Amino acid sequence: MKGAVVLLSGGVDSTVLLHWMRRRLGSEAELRALSFDYGQRHAYELEMARVQAKRAGVREHRVVPFRFFADLIAGASALTDVRSVVPDGRTLSQEERNQPPTYVPNRNMVLLSVAAAYAEAVGLPVVSYGAHQSDAYGYWDCTGDFVRAINVVLAQNRRKPVSIDAPFVEWNKTAIICVGMELNVDFSATWSCYRGIPPACGVCSTCRERRRAFKEAGVPDPLETAMNGT
Amino acid sequence: MKGAVVLLSGGVDSTVLLHWMRRRLGSEAELRALSFDYGQRHAYELEMARVQAKRAGVREHRVVPFRFFADLIAGASALTDVRSVVPDGRTLSQEERNQPPTYVPNRNMVLLSVAAAYAEAVGLPVVSYGAHQSDAYGYWDCTGDFVRAINVVLAQNRRKPVSIDAPFVEWNKTAIICVGMELNVDFSATWSCYRGIPPACGVCSTCRERRRAFKEAGVPDPLETAMNGT
Repeated sequence: MKGAVVLLSGGVDSTVLLHWMRRRLGSEAELRALSFDYGQRHAYELEMARVQAKRAGVREHRVVPFRFFADLIAGASALTDVRSVVPDGRTLSQEERNQPPTYVPNRNMVLLSVAAAYAEAVGLPVVSYGAHQSDAYGYWDCTGDFVRAINVVLAQNRRKPVSIDAPFVEWNKTAIICVGMELNVDFSATWSCYRGIPPACGVCSTCRERRRAFKEAGVPDPLETAMNGT
Repeated sequence: MKGAVVLLSGGVDSTVLLHWMRRRLGSEAELRALSFDYGQRHAYELEMARVQAKRAGVREHRVVPFRFFADLIAGASALTDVRSVVPDGRTLSQEERNQPPTYVPNRNMVLLSVAAAYAEAVGLPVVSYGAHQSDAYGYWDCTGDFVRAINVVLAQNRRKPVSIDAPFVEWNKTAIICVGMELNVDFSATWSCYRGIPPACGVCSTCRERRRAFKEAGVPDPLETAMNGT
């Protein structure tokens, strides 16, 4: 692989992916990172993305100004509508668990399409995307079937087809954390909480998921430790 | 069909599509139009889109601020890079005809993804898209196969799947113009030329295509007539 564009949110999964891609491709390969400022509440993530991109030695880290998207879909998602209440992980109904209130309409197809355009424009053949099995329960656009279907579309490009690489799509978050530990990823410089600013709330669905995954991996979460120490 | 979001550029094809959808759905149906200001040279199109959307009685016409996209893919397309020379339709090599310099990397997948997000957010099940057979020669993202592959992705949405409707995908531009005449579409309020501002240049690939199609349809182009009269 000549190089890749990594979709980097600044969360645990995409940060491990970034450093994993660096090891897979070698220190000379061209790695670029792409983040989206789409009006999400947890914009602190983007700061963490900047820190991690620099550490991974990317050629370029672009933050795409994407707030128009929140405006376009206003009201349809708790994640971009600051007036909504971010749901506690325990209070989801069965229907909500099938597609949580934090779901953003068609977000991942939009992000992957833009990332593929960028990769094509800069001449890189791959977009790496940190979708994983732990999200597939609730988000139709985090599954292996979704990635395969997107790749069928992109393969039709006649001159410079780009493909989506989602190496964690059948992994759970615990496995991703274990790989990150082995890669010496600094998890204190990642962010997950939906509420957006430190300290992490500890009760939203991603805080719970993160805590559970670190516990299962048998390692302390340095972010949580840091906050507990202050 | 409850209603639809129409991707409206302000050119001939999407304008006919808009009025055709109004007739198909009836005067009471909810029709919305979505245009993109993505830094294209022919932004005059957007003015024509506004005029036509109003005439079709859309509930809302949104112009998505999309100039970041031109910045992201800078240098990769004549259509968004004002420093490039827009090619004369006659000077394309065989390879260029297979993917012309006016091709914008992955543009249509990006636009359709955003339109599908908007349709999902406002509760409409369909995005109508004016791709047609005359473009399929050069643009991989204007073909029936492309639309079918996109629909396979979108059909995976578990709660509110949106589908892409491309009724002209097997038609040529001449047929679209004939339908537009029958619908009394005001073609003087449409815009095609890549050079962006009136008067139309008459030599770029879309000007040539437009002139040929009107000639084949056996009707004068009111836009060209208007300009010839000034």
